[in-house]
Amino acid sequence: MKHNSYFDGKVQSLAVNTSEGPATVGVIEPGKYTFKTDSEEHMHVVAGTLKAKLPGAAWQAFARGQSFVVPAQASFDVEAAADVAYLCYYKK
Amino acid sequence: MKHNSYFDGKVQSLAVNTSEGPATVGVIEPGKYTFKTDSEEHMHVVAGTLKAKLPGAAWQAFARGQSFVVPAQASFDVEAAADVAYLCYYKK
Repeated sequence: MKHNSYFDGKVQSLAVNTSEGPATVGVIEPGKYTFKTDSEEHMHVVAGTLKAKLPGAAWQAFARGQSFVVPAQASFDVEAAADVAYLCYYKK
Repeated sequence: MKHNSYFDGKVQSLAVNTSEGPATVGVIEPGKYTFKTDSEEHMHVVAGTLKAKLPGAAWQAFARGQSFVVPAQASFDVEAAADVAYLCYYKK
């Protein structure tokens, strides 16, 4: 199983193969981070609340059970005031 | 962030602090495993389907969005036919 660690370990994830394609489950510790996408990403908040600034949009808060889509080849910012758990699907 | 690895890396998890207390998000690769609880555990299936045999009960399948509770100081079996992602809360 692939274990990924980013931003000095403040964001970590585990690879999971799902019936909806490749995904990761992960945790984001408090902080503000910029991510770049390769494929389109479908981010689902599993625990906590994640603020995200998607391309061309204002900051929005996504609570547990909510999700957002990030286009391929894009950059987006997220901010967590407390730990956030997420499930992210990578779409081809 | 604490990263846990069990069963030769076939089950891995990441610690996450939530408003409902300490939890882990993790992935279970295909296989059959026996876990022992310390505190009461509330297991939520986030992706995939997990079969579980809880103390005194028959095998049951839990799909994405479903959850089950395991008593403290107990042993339970799980079986995954494909990868499963979960969120597990530890209750005091």
